[in-house]
Amino acid sequence: MRTTGDTRARIVTAATELFRRQGYAASGMKQIVAAADAPYGSAYHFFPGGKSQLGEEVIRTSGAAYLELIAGLFPLPVPQGADMATVTADAFTAAARTLRELDFTDPCPLATIALEVAGTHESLRLATAEVFASWTDGLAAFYRAGGIAEPAAHETASSVIALLEGAFMLGRAARSTDPVLAASRAAAAVVRAARSEAGAGDA
Amino acid sequence: MRTTGDTRARIVTAATELFRRQGYAASGMKQIVAAADAPYGSAYHFFPGGKSQLGEEVIRTSGAAYLELIAGLFPLPVPQGADMATVTADAFTAAARTLRELDFTDPCPLATIALEVAGTHESLRLATAEVFASWTDGLAAFYRAGGIAEPAAHETASSVIALLEGAFMLGRAARSTDPVLAASRAAAAVVRAARSEAGAGDA
Repeated sequence: MRTTGDTRARIVTAATELFRRQGYAASGMKQIVAAADAPYGSAYHFFPGGKSQLGEEVIRTSGAAYLELIAGLFPLPVPQGADMATVTADAFTAAARTLRELDFTDPCPLATIALEVAGTHESLRLATAEVFASWTDGLAAFYRAGGIAEPAAHETASSVIALLEGAFMLGRAARSTDPVLAASRAAAAVVRAARSEAGAGDA
Repeated sequence: MRTTGDTRARIVTAATELFRRQGYAASGMKQIVAAADAPYGSAYHFFPGGKSQLGEEVIRTSGAAYLELIAGLFPLPVPQGADMATVTADAFTAAARTLRELDFTDPCPLATIALEVAGTHESLRLATAEVFASWTDGLAAFYRAGGIAEPAAHETASSVIALLEGAFMLGRAARSTDPVLAASRAAAAVVRAARSEAGAGDA
């Protein structure tokens, strides 16, 4: 039996999929509720603020889900004997697999909407900024635990996330996982450089 | 005196600005011709294929302009005594300045449209793929001239471009140049790692 909770969740899921596939501006409420198999009126019942309220919910919900994904891929405490550069490279290899499995739909639910709203919807821009910051904080904690002091830990985390987002962009355009696999080696180099500077600092 | 050539160019310029500020889907022909200070009918006179023809023109024109920018920042032959990692880091520092000067409008005219069209407009996706490939080829030629053999030269170029695109995304969301400045150091590390592996291969 479907409950109203189901309907609300289906609308959020459908919006997430449409925003990442075709963007925020191109996805109308009508298309979203149709994709969610929900009655049209339910969209404004659950989201009286309309598409921008739904957009904020999508950003926050996806952001929290991806933060858990990051925590899973970059476990704390850092497993004994684990090399931070290898863990990072492996996360990119997994991302390349995901990109292919999604048939080059954006594996990041935030990327398209983040670029679309940065200069046009201040409340949505802030929501994307907060989510990117939460991911950066989460990843920085992993690098810190592995011995990279601040501010290098945050800078490393920010660059690794930037590299992944950019590699998804190039990979989607080319319908190829090559940019993500190249970025896998690059990300390992970024982490190794930060680690070796941290080590030099210790000496 | 304004000629029809002016009108066409003004439409392309206005479309480029609107696509990078608010995205492709959100920019209607009506808004574009108004921003170009052109009569409405002129859009379909010059672009009988409508917005998707205009989109392709924007992608190719901006792509060619940015390829020249890359050639300027990464000169060939590599100037004597120039360090490839430093040249790369300097390009990111310049990009951070540009991001601030543009008040966090996208410095890359392709990024938003590339994500929007990747899964929805095959001809526009192909145009973005070709432009990204031309940038990667241009940058790879610089790294190759500096002693990084293929396929590492192309992989390095792809990762440096990905890093810049992703850093623009994070920087626009946060309205901060910090992600681009962090990526400057990361990009230098990526180039140094590729250079040192190339050097190890020579030995």
